[in-house]
Amino acid sequence: MDDATRKAILQRLASASGHLKGIERMVNEDAYCIDVIRQIQAVQAALNKVSAMMLDNHLRTCMTTAIRGDDPDERERMLQEVTSVFDMHNKL
Amino acid sequence: MDDATRKAILQRLASASGHLKGIERMVNEDAYCIDVIRQIQAVQAALNKVSAMMLDNHLRTCMTTAIRGDDPDERERMLQEVTSVFDMHNKL
Amino acid sequence: MDDATRKAILQRLASASGHLKGIERMVNEDAYCIDVIRQIQAVQAALNKVSAMMLDNHLRTCMTTAIRGDDPDERERMLQEVTSVFDMHNKL
Amino acid sequence: MDDATRKAILQRLASASGHLKGIERMVNEDAYCIDVIRQIQAVQAALNKVSAMMLDNHLRTCMTTAIRGDDPDERERMLQEVTSVFDMHNKL
Repeated sequence: MDDATRKAILQRLASASGHLKGIERMVNEDAYCIDVIRQIQAVQAALNKVSAMMLDNHLRTCMTTAIRGDDPDERERMLQEVTSVFDMHNKL
Repeated sequence: MDDATRKAILQRLASASGHLKGIERMVNEDAYCIDVIRQIQAVQAALNKVSAMMLDNHLRTCMTTAIRGDDPDERERMLQEVTSVFDMHNKL
Repeated sequence: MDDATRKAILQRLASASGHLKGIERMVNEDAYCIDVIRQIQAVQAALNKVSAMMLDNHLRTCMTTAIRGDDPDERERMLQEVTSVFDMHNKL
Repeated sequence: MDDATRKAILQRLASASGHLKGIERMVNEDAYCIDVIRQIQAVQAALNKVSAMMLDNHLRTCMTTAIRGDDPDERERMLQEVTSVFDMHNKL
């Protein structure tokens, strides 16, 4: 992963962490349930964006190396991994 | 919200926060992208559970009061809110 | 369910069915995979909308009756049902 | 796409179409809303499976060709497409 990508991902993760701390405060202060749910959904959307950035990086690096390489087992493993995280995302 | 529910929700949020900090470390240490994505998905699943607990509490408290009460506008507003968070969840 | 709501829901379901038939044709004609996935996602978004309309109707009818009624078991069962479909939606 | 994969995908799509027709009947016969929502969710899960199969096929065919090929624009376009369907799935 190049430094710019890592930095962008870490900033988004730090922002999601701060957001989550704010949600803990809301629950502690008995905020309106629907407002809490909406804030949780905003954190989840931010995490979706991080996952998409990680996947993009993965396809450009490890996956590209495996597809160009000559180890069919490694290639097969990677193909199945990408489909499995896509499938798992459907279940969230 | 009763104290036991609030405590259970706060514990889950604190656990999700800790998990997210762990993911920041993983990215910093250049962990395998697919592993990072899987950990993000685990945090999202934990947050889904918190949202479901918040919704359950909402239906039992504010929503029940509104449906039994005699303010049709308030009732209408609440009905639309629940459908809107359900709909939003579909988009995550 | 009132007739206008049922009619609107049936129209959306019929439209989703037609869309799905079109996707079968695309696969038969060896369309580009990514285009097929996008069409499937469009059908899923249409079905999400139908689910939200069904939930809205449920909250206004059965759920309202149960919350105003004096059968606590029935009320409890309904509250759990709504939370369970919300939770299940998170897993799609 | 090889014939076995196409056949498997078409069978799943035909099954989802049949399922959807059954849901139209349920709505016509005024079935319980929650039951209708659960059946819609089952169709969406079946469609998720089809999307995952299409993606798996795409990675093994077009994507592999592009990554091994020497057209950087084509490769870039494909990488962005995969990330975009992953991202879109997050929004369903």
